[in-house]
Amino acid sequence: MQRIINNPNEVVEDMLKGFVKTHCDIVDKTDNSRVLKYKNAPIEGKVGVVTGGGSGHKPAFIGYIGKNMIDAVAIGEIFSSPTAKAFYDSFKAANSGNGVACLYGNYAGDNMNVKMALEMAKMEGIEVKTVVANDDVASAPKTEREKRRGVAGEIIMWKVGGAKAAQGGSLDEVIEVSQRAIDNTRSVGIGLSPCTIPAVGKPNFTIEEGTMEVGIGHHGEPGIKVSELKTADEMAESMLDIILPDYPFVEGDEVVALVSGLGATSVMELYILYNKVEEILTEKGIKVHKSYVGNYFTSLDMMGVTLTLTKLDDELKELIDVEVDTMGLTQFGSK
Amino acid sequence: MQRIINNPNEVVEDMLKGFVKTHCDIVDKTDNSRVLKYKNAPIEGKVGVVTGGGSGHKPAFIGYIGKNMIDAVAIGEIFSSPTAKAFYDSFKAANSGNGVACLYGNYAGDNMNVKMALEMAKMEGIEVKTVVANDDVASAPKTEREKRRGVAGEIIMWKVGGAKAAQGGSLDEVIEVSQRAIDNTRSVGIGLSPCTIPAVGKPNFTIEEGTMEVGIGHHGEPGIKVSELKTADEMAESMLDIILPDYPFVEGDEVVALVSGLGATSVMELYILYNKVEEILTEKGIKVHKSYVGNYFTSLDMMGVTLTLTKLDDELKELIDVEVDTMGLTQFGSK
Repeated sequence: MQRIINNPNEVVEDMLKGFVKTHCDIVDKTDNSRVLKYKNAPIEGKVGVVTGGGSGHKPAFIGYIGKNMIDAVAIGEIFSSPTAKAFYDSFKAANSGNGVACLYGNYAGDNMNVKMALEMAKMEGIEVKTVVANDDVASAPKTEREKRRGVAGEIIMWKVGGAKAAQGGSLDEVIEVSQRAIDNTRSVGIGLSPCTIPAVGKPNFTIEEGTMEVGIGHHGEPGIKVSELKTADEMAESMLDIILPDYPFVEGDEVVALVSGLGATSVMELYILYNKVEEILTEKGIKVHKSYVGNYFTSLDMMGVTLTLTKLDDELKELIDVEVDTMGLTQFGSK
Repeated sequence: MQRIINNPNEVVEDMLKGFVKTHCDIVDKTDNSRVLKYKNAPIEGKVGVVTGGGSGHKPAFIGYIGKNMIDAVAIGEIFSSPTAKAFYDSFKAANSGNGVACLYGNYAGDNMNVKMALEMAKMEGIEVKTVVANDDVASAPKTEREKRRGVAGEIIMWKVGGAKAAQGGSLDEVIEVSQRAIDNTRSVGIGLSPCTIPAVGKPNFTIEEGTMEVGIGHHGEPGIKVSELKTADEMAESMLDIILPDYPFVEGDEVVALVSGLGATSVMELYILYNKVEEILTEKGIKVHKSYVGNYFTSLDMMGVTLTLTKLDDELKELIDVEVDTMGLTQFGSK
């Protein structure tokens, strides 16, 4: 395991120390070592926006703390849910009395801990409402969307919800538009290599050289098929063949396209994939309003890529275009 | 080779297509397919700022095109110098009649091609002056600094030179401050794995599991020693032991610290390393004015990290703090 770490059991602690030192212009510590907040949070008069999840997905989740996006994040161990207490403390860190939108991904541990945190918040009189992201098309059939996992589409949900809150939207308005963003979003991943949790020290699954796993999850959850390794253009076609009919995306639609590396795939390769994605979308009369290409939601040192599309309406387009200043996402480097 | 590519011999072409599509708000194509320019270049009344180099180092070099930084970039094949014609055409793309600063790294191919491009420019009456980055401490003894390679310190040189040009500095002023920036900069790398050039299909050198190569170059150039794999804290100590005495950096200095991954190392690990770097610097009375932690100058899918320190004076500090909007560098995510 060729890693730059100290104690494999303390990678999250050590990472957080370095993160806070580097980004002290954006983030602040809180009394809970597993909650980071935007330095200006809670912001008077604004709905608080919170998320949380396991570590190992950098820039997600803490990299999206900042102006017009996330106010506080509950931080879990590598690939593990944050505790209920961490979610609850992140609600408190984000709450200025206008309520809190908790926008997170559909995983059993997160669902359970958010539910407990909601009860704790209720007892303290903090109003919290949730949106659960389920954009990963490959994780369950369309008829069971509620079972699907949340993946990189969460970034679009945070971007839209954070912008709406910054514009002075009410809690119900922030929740409604965040839900609409994720309802309009579909993602799929392709894995080219496994990843290694430092405390485990060996890969937690295998992908044979010369093959690829279509539909893989952010933690190596099995995909829908293993096939021989295809070209970038063929991968783009396969991914769009899965995503486009599911929503469906059709001629005349305007979309956000987000191509994220899974950690160990070079950004050069992501541009090669994106080139074909935009070409196919253009052929189909689907216009890319904004594209993001880079490492936006990773899985430790996994090789591979996710593709996310969000259909925009006028309000979503306006919210996507709102300025944002975070470590993981800025207005630069995209249309 | 688990890659997202089409024809291995056309990865640069394919990547550039996707890059231009994604970043059409920042970059423009030119008549030379191996030259990209800032969409607003040439900027009336401003000194042009140009760089160039081989591909495979994303975000370097084209990711630093943008407001207040680079006006045009000459693009080479993977790990190969751009042609003299590409450098010359990049001078033309950046030149508004106020001269061009060509700020590039010390490699034989680049030196040769820049020299030829300078002759071509001279014949056309375009005034071009150069600064050659040589920040890689491990690549030659201190007494032979002119032999050292340029590595991630080039980013600091571009940032400073680009800011000075944006402020209306003359060509001589831009050159002087860029030279000062690189003279005040020292870098060192540690490699944990080799990388694979797509057209070759296998690693071009080896690093045994359980070992690390201290002083490795951006293309796998041999380092100064191979040792057993150390902890992140020990790596930080080793790197500073090499960098600090070379300049030297001393108590009371203010610095920029840049930690860049080499491609396949997760950003989480870079924060773990940075945590110790800042701790040691603080103990020594050296203040980090600004830190950058991320993938700023990579080497395809190499695992490993580079550390760069630049000593600041009042002018360099002011120039580092100038706003910048590029794909690779923004003001966010750093102090």
